[in-house]
Amino acid sequence: MKRRKFIKNATLTGLGITTFGLLGSNGKMFYGDNLTVNRQRIEDRIKELAKFGQDENGHGYRVAYTKGDIEGRAWFMQLMKNAGLNPSIDSGGNIIGNRKGKKPSLKPIAFGSHIDMVPDGGNYDGTLGCLSALEVIEVLNENKMVTEHPLEVIIFANEEGGLIGSQAMVGQLTDDGLKQISQSGLVMAEGIKAIGGKPADLQSAIRKKGDLHAFLELHIEQGGILENEGLQIGIVEGIVGILDCQIAIEGFANHAGTTPMKLRKDALLAASKLIIAVNEVINSVPGSQVGTVGKINALPGAYNVVPGEVTLGLEIRDLSWEKIEMLLNEIEKRATSIATESKTKISFVREASFSKPALTDKSLQQKINESALSLGLKTKLMQSGAGHDSQQMATITPIGMIFVPSVGGISHSPNEFTTAEDMTNGANVLLKTIMSVDRE
Amino acid sequence: MKRRKFIKNATLTGLGITTFGLLGSNGKMFYGDNLTVNRQRIEDRIKELAKFGQDENGHGYRVAYTKGDIEGRAWFMQLMKNAGLNPSIDSGGNIIGNRKGKKPSLKPIAFGSHIDMVPDGGNYDGTLGCLSALEVIEVLNENKMVTEHPLEVIIFANEEGGLIGSQAMVGQLTDDGLKQISQSGLVMAEGIKAIGGKPADLQSAIRKKGDLHAFLELHIEQGGILENEGLQIGIVEGIVGILDCQIAIEGFANHAGTTPMKLRKDALLAASKLIIAVNEVINSVPGSQVGTVGKINALPGAYNVVPGEVTLGLEIRDLSWEKIEMLLNEIEKRATSIATESKTKISFVREASFSKPALTDKSLQQKINESALSLGLKTKLMQSGAGHDSQQMATITPIGMIFVPSVGGISHSPNEFTTAEDMTNGANVLLKTIMSVDRE
Repeated sequence: MKRRKFIKNATLTGLGITTFGLLGSNGKMFYGDNLTVNRQRIEDRIKELAKFGQDENGHGYRVAYTKGDIEGRAWFMQLMKNAGLNPSIDSGGNIIGNRKGKKPSLKPIAFGSHIDMVPDGGNYDGTLGCLSALEVIEVLNENKMVTEHPLEVIIFANEEGGLIGSQAMVGQLTDDGLKQISQSGLVMAEGIKAIGGKPADLQSAIRKKGDLHAFLELHIEQGGILENEGLQIGIVEGIVGILDCQIAIEGFANHAGTTPMKLRKDALLAASKLIIAVNEVINSVPGSQVGTVGKINALPGAYNVVPGEVTLGLEIRDLSWEKIEMLLNEIEKRATSIATESKTKISFVREASFSKPALTDKSLQQKINESALSLGLKTKLMQSGAGHDSQQMATITPIGMIFVPSVGGISHSPNEFTTAEDMTNGANVLLKTIMSVDRE
Repeated sequence: MKRRKFIKNATLTGLGITTFGLLGSNGKMFYGDNLTVNRQRIEDRIKELAKFGQDENGHGYRVAYTKGDIEGRAWFMQLMKNAGLNPSIDSGGNIIGNRKGKKPSLKPIAFGSHIDMVPDGGNYDGTLGCLSALEVIEVLNENKMVTEHPLEVIIFANEEGGLIGSQAMVGQLTDDGLKQISQSGLVMAEGIKAIGGKPADLQSAIRKKGDLHAFLELHIEQGGILENEGLQIGIVEGIVGILDCQIAIEGFANHAGTTPMKLRKDALLAASKLIIAVNEVINSVPGSQVGTVGKINALPGAYNVVPGEVTLGLEIRDLSWEKIEMLLNEIEKRATSIATESKTKISFVREASFSKPALTDKSLQQKINESALSLGLKTKLMQSGAGHDSQQMATITPIGMIFVPSVGGISHSPNEFTTAEDMTNGANVLLKTIMSVDRE
């Protein structure tokens, strides 16, 4: 990517508004290019929003559909009103704010994230993307700027409970999904009602292919790659696909005192070999794929009994579904050898729920990169290992995602943290990218 | 060991009783040497006893202190009465029957086992030793034979709950032990009362060093060695010591999607390496030692989280306590390397309860072997990997233990089985060994 040259304090008049500009790689100066977000306002609002759903020890429980979520959403909608976004709630519970563009015939550029959190979660996951989306509007308002495209700020409902709001928006939320129990304890349909949605009229929430010009989401990385490599901006290449598999290992439970080592069919010993094999297979090919055994249960589970039965929970994630299938296949081959050698039976059952990879738009990747480089920020093309509302939106519109560093790679934890500088960088990249998309 | 020559139908007269004899290795014929037990009676009584505590599906729940145990003990005491053993219950709840010897100044030869079982247990563990002890008395009665030493049949109380009766007999049952909750649900003291013991007067149950001439126990192997090697009789060399250890592995719980493989501190991966290391260390030296990781718990235990914390339950058993310590030491060394390499912390905490090895008497081992060989049975000197009342008795008297094969090595299960032929072989060896000890 070519770097642009800064022209300090250069001025140009456009639409009656004086602003500062930059020269593009072709020497052209772009309208709105040197707008910047208000760091203090972002920091203050992150802290204010954190108070909703917080307990007496300062831990956050703004779980979707609970009191904290409802109150946090009301606070956010008031800010949107103040910013002239005229917010409304769609039937899936998503909050949508609109800002008119100069050409009503153009499709809206949408951007946003979610403000619900996991129990005892962090104050940056989702909220940074929402407050930065609002910040973009505030900056445009302050500079009296009107974009060509209409703009749309979307605050998705219940992201952490399974991308429920964005599923509704793209027409993927089923009747079965509405019957699930949400983390709030409410059945999903009741939870949606509690935040002002209309589960009986989900049809009205659906956005079709072509309804939006693009969707952009700024989010914390939730991993340690950017911090580790000393980078400020991650350009998301895609959101990984996820395959979960339950593995059962059947040995023979026997007395741990009277069964000689060589006569054992130890299911836990076989499981241990398989866990190491999973690690070896995942690391055996280049790429960013990850594979995890996160669950284990060994029966009967006593000091004095050789384990006869073990179940494992295996998860594989990658941007390529073919690669996921290939890795699982290799793991199954290794399992066959381990079963023979350990005199156990090993079987694999895929979980019904899985998610296919969602790739971001290449032209949006490029615009994010150019925006970041123009601000002197170091970038990296990377995958999102976690799921995001953007992956649902990818089914109806081109998506772009911007990552900023998570200190220590920690998220879904009270220790989740992103510096004010990194938040500001991310919001500025979001702002510049929106302007760049608008210019197309 | 030298084999004796059989002299079929040879007769000799002793104490007015005509019997059949054998020539010893020195050519001498021994009194009572060719008495044999009644196979049918053993089989019938095993089946009769199995009915006490049995549910409608034929599964056995004769857990100590429960109705099945109380009724089974009453049935057994009646048989003892019929055999002239004049049974009584000591303050620890053990049933003791006595048969006078020709020389009252000699200390009694004691033998027996237990009739309580684990929940859903088998019909041979303990009961074979008890019914065979009674069978020895029946055969002596039928043959109107009186031994030199007094004989004592002991049916220990609550073996499966922690060798409670035998602990009481050797003065090891503490006030704390009496306060434990037994598997029946009753506090131990209450359970002891329920079977006719006197927990407030445990002192009266204590047998001191030298009170008995010897203690012998016939038991099923509870393992698969004899069956695997095509042998009929195991001569127990000793009862293994047991060391239990809790191992904690501390890694870092992180998002399984966003944490690259090389940035992980996966506690379950480290635990898997350690489980394999335990197996390697145990198998690295010759001998019958066993080492088992029977318990595992990984937190937080979700598909999408790299496990941050794992606890393991490690058990090591061997006849030599020094060897157990040496093996644990090796495992700890391996853990140190694994911790460094996997960026985890691994710590070991020994459980408060452990049991030191108990060796059997060498002269009794020899007598058991000679008795078995005289019957044409194949023998093996072996360890008992499981605990037995004999290990308590070893603290006050020389002990000898006889093992017979367990089909499939299965025990503590409704599938526990020992053939009538093997049971008869075991009871005959017990009988012959008692006669041999009596002759000394």
